[in-house]
Amino acid sequence: MKNIIIASTSTLHEGSYLEYLLPTLQIHFKNCKSILFIPYARPGGISHDEYTAKAAQAFSKINITVKGIHEFENAEDAIKNAEGIFTGGGNTFLLVTKLYYHNVMQILSETVKNGTPYLGTSAGSNICGLSMQTTNDMPIIYPPSFQTLGLIPFNLNPHYLDADLQSKHMGETRETRIKEFHAFNSIPVLGLREGSWLEVNGDKITLKGNLKARLFLQNQTPQELETESDLSNLK
Amino acid sequence: MKNIIIASTSTLHEGSYLEYLLPTLQIHFKNCKSILFIPYARPGGISHDEYTAKAAQAFSKINITVKGIHEFENAEDAIKNAEGIFTGGGNTFLLVTKLYYHNVMQILSETVKNGTPYLGTSAGSNICGLSMQTTNDMPIIYPPSFQTLGLIPFNLNPHYLDADLQSKHMGETRETRIKEFHAFNSIPVLGLREGSWLEVNGDKITLKGNLKARLFLQNQTPQELETESDLSNLK
Repeated sequence: MKNIIIASTSTLHEGSYLEYLLPTLQIHFKNCKSILFIPYARPGGISHDEYTAKAAQAFSKINITVKGIHEFENAEDAIKNAEGIFTGGGNTFLLVTKLYYHNVMQILSETVKNGTPYLGTSAGSNICGLSMQTTNDMPIIYPPSFQTLGLIPFNLNPHYLDADLQSKHMGETRETRIKEFHAFNSIPVLGLREGSWLEVNGDKITLKGNLKARLFLQNQTPQELETESDLSNLK
Repeated sequence: MKNIIIASTSTLHEGSYLEYLLPTLQIHFKNCKSILFIPYARPGGISHDEYTAKAAQAFSKINITVKGIHEFENAEDAIKNAEGIFTGGGNTFLLVTKLYYHNVMQILSETVKNGTPYLGTSAGSNICGLSMQTTNDMPIIYPPSFQTLGLIPFNLNPHYLDADLQSKHMGETRETRIKEFHAFNSIPVLGLREGSWLEVNGDKITLKGNLKARLFLQNQTPQELETESDLSNLK
């Protein structure tokens, strides 16, 4: 039975890393003494070791130890044997490239579908959807495919940002970008604002946090969804 | 001899399409009665016909007619025979995918290197660099490669946006994204603010417009470049 938390961001403004999620994570990972961290997305280009140390520091507050997947000889075995798994944010193109390079995209999907508790933030949440095609990240590396874990039957846009109506910048708004995605793809896209997350328990998907989320369906006006909305039938 | 204008944006805040560039374009395309428009980037998902009509309306103000590449039976011949070429903005992933699909990436590069006057705006400027890896766009379609025209020996970030120091949003700033690119790539990146453009005459590359541009070199502090800076030796 799936047991997943998919968060828009790791960090809220003026908060520390994972701080706002710790009470939730304490319950989510209650049966884990140790979790596996996947640091492949390397935010700002930091090393796997530095990134793993950052995750370990946050999880030490709830008495869980953290080991990076790069510390294991066999990445596939590390995933299969993990008590819980956390994939951190950073660059989604890099994350997806490395998951394919280490040949673990499929085993990660199967392991999480079989019930290993999973946490994703930002890029680590993007990969929970059907494809990474609604990421905000820069294509700094060419992945072998845009297909991702498919843990939920739709796509996500983490760090969802409403258009700034005062802005004089002429670059595309987030909404325009998602509209361009829907010119070619019929997959629903959920814009998750910072502070929102999805809780997946078995086939039940629930919007959590204090904020609304914005749902984009092909050829339809976007909708605002209240917290605690049930998204189990969205596809 | 190369004769190219590479603009950050087609449109300034409160301006109409191409308005601020028209005096420059009148000189740039002075020997052209008609130009070829490449509408493949389809901003907001609009059709090739709609987008071509928009370009034609702007160019009619300087007495130049516009024909879309999709109106020709043979896209390669259309490029070879063009008096001038304009590639409009929109989604860079889509633009690059279509250029490869129609097998014209190489012929477009050769034709412009041989002297056919070229204008790019936004996505149409992105493709002038060595790769499209510093685009801001969403990966709505999977291109066969990220390699682009290589008309200049570096990469561009059009619609360059300075970090908003007041923002409470935790998504990556543009500068952070480019830093992530430089964790894996040594290609220089020029952040072109809206209202700036590059003028390429033969091997000479000059920054134009009223604004400074921001230059990112791997492992170096970013630099601000004054307008009229000579970028001919940047690589």
